[in-house]
Amino acid sequence: MTNITKQIKQVAECDGKCDSCSTSEACNDQRKQQYEEDMKLKLKLSKIKHKIAVISGKGGVGKSTVTANLSVAFAMHGHRDKVGVLDADIHGPCIPKMLGLKGQRLRGGPAGMVFPVVGRRRIKVVSMDFFLPNDEAPVIWRGPLKMRAIQQFLSDIAWGELDYLFIDLPPGTGDEALSVMQLIPNLDGVVIVTMPSEVSQSVVRKAVSFARQMGVPIIGIIENMSGFVCPDCGAKVDIFRAGGGKKIAEDLSVPYLGSIPIDPSISYDSDNGLPFIEENKTSAATTAFAEIVKEIQQFIASREK
Amino acid sequence: MTNITKQIKQVAECDGKCDSCSTSEACNDQRKQQYEEDMKLKLKLSKIKHKIAVISGKGGVGKSTVTANLSVAFAMHGHRDKVGVLDADIHGPCIPKMLGLKGQRLRGGPAGMVFPVVGRRRIKVVSMDFFLPNDEAPVIWRGPLKMRAIQQFLSDIAWGELDYLFIDLPPGTGDEALSVMQLIPNLDGVVIVTMPSEVSQSVVRKAVSFARQMGVPIIGIIENMSGFVCPDCGAKVDIFRAGGGKKIAEDLSVPYLGSIPIDPSISYDSDNGLPFIEENKTSAATTAFAEIVKEIQQFIASREK
Repeated sequence: MTNITKQIKQVAECDGKCDSCSTSEACNDQRKQQYEEDMKLKLKLSKIKHKIAVISGKGGVGKSTVTANLSVAFAMHGHRDKVGVLDADIHGPCIPKMLGLKGQRLRGGPAGMVFPVVGRRRIKVVSMDFFLPNDEAPVIWRGPLKMRAIQQFLSDIAWGELDYLFIDLPPGTGDEALSVMQLIPNLDGVVIVTMPSEVSQSVVRKAVSFARQMGVPIIGIIENMSGFVCPDCGAKVDIFRAGGGKKIAEDLSVPYLGSIPIDPSISYDSDNGLPFIEENKTSAATTAFAEIVKEIQQFIASREK
Repeated sequence: MTNITKQIKQVAECDGKCDSCSTSEACNDQRKQQYEEDMKLKLKLSKIKHKIAVISGKGGVGKSTVTANLSVAFAMHGHRDKVGVLDADIHGPCIPKMLGLKGQRLRGGPAGMVFPVVGRRRIKVVSMDFFLPNDEAPVIWRGPLKMRAIQQFLSDIAWGELDYLFIDLPPGTGDEALSVMQLIPNLDGVVIVTMPSEVSQSVVRKAVSFARQMGVPIIGIIENMSGFVCPDCGAKVDIFRAGGGKKIAEDLSVPYLGSIPIDPSISYDSDNGLPFIEENKTSAATTAFAEIVKEIQQFIASREK
């Protein structure tokens, strides 16, 4: 056979399973490349026991704060060196700042390996922020490039063996969220973060429908910035109202994980790269957060049975 | 000549200007369709005197609240019936709720015309929300579909003659923002909304660089949720800290438009579809907002000279 007829025969007979194909080694077909990438991703994901995505319909509800503190909470309680955070917010990556890792860079190793940045309590972090020359640099990318970046974050990084990978997604139900759901078919579930205001509520309903349509388990809803206690006089003021998260969870028959009150020190700590659950061990927000962590652990445990 | 050779000749000689082409009528080339769409968009935009996009690096900073109240402020002061709002947040459209237009639908007219929804003070609004069956429905779209939707919102809607069109963009520097910048080459400028917290600051720098790289004038930065005054005791508490907006504006040599203090009634009013500048005429936030409107008017006036 000539080379060309051989190639045509190969393509016609291709069943997409390169492992069992006798001519795989000499094959130049695009599908082989795709297959190899899929296999690489599968292998990487198989070493990560639990993958949890943190989503919200609306931005600015404190999703990254929740993700950062979740990772610290799990690392503090029995999973040191076994927790990773993938910051999938390509345009506005905040995780490095919140975990005190601004200005860090990923490091290369032998055989083209790339290692995540390792932060407090040996949490492994990968973020677009580690690739940017400075804070001003915007990432002006459309969807396909973003999907490619997320795929590489997952499959080309030496995450090692992890108990938990938390994925911080940008708001909305667009390219990044879709990409993560498609790239990680065996996601343990999503945590949905919301604010008490009704405007946020109407958007969080979309996040719930999104997860359902994607067939991803919903671990539950967290209400952030719920009520505010004046540090001077103790008066309780519902800046963004309160209770909306619980109400919507009941409406939609989704577990309610708890509410985190507004605490100026949370914003202050996040700005300084200090997870508030470590810095303010006695605050109401930390107590609330500990309960939420328990709920998530129970969810995971119930799935492992 | 046969039909095919005619077509080949047409394609080879095409300079993309269908108006001056003698064979335009019989032409089936894709470029003709593109040309016609471009012309339709250009015609629509030529009837809108000023186009202002409201952007932010980060979500949840109150961008939609600012857009909604800007539109009301301009409609109240000399531009009744001449103000439009394009809600370009495809995944989390909030403008209808904030302007009390939830549940409304666009209406068709003769010759395939589609009219925007008309709200208080005759403000014309187009939003993805008007197409959704209910609040739960997520729009699970990747970038190209979103660009197409925004283009149709601009060119297929009977906006009529407007003095101002405000465009509410989702956070980030991805598909929607890029699409709006490309579809509206003669944008008057962008208003950048931020929050005082440092984490937001680092993201707003990206928004400034984005506008500069796109060659779009920056009207200025607004600091939202700046400080909080306890309604019980009058103590001033900087929940998300304050002053970051001014600092960043100075750092980046961008005009600073002003800061809007946190006011629980803003969130309450937004939830009820009531622009706070109409509802709370004497509040500190309304006074601050009036100053911001003046600054924007001055910017526009200086460009008209």
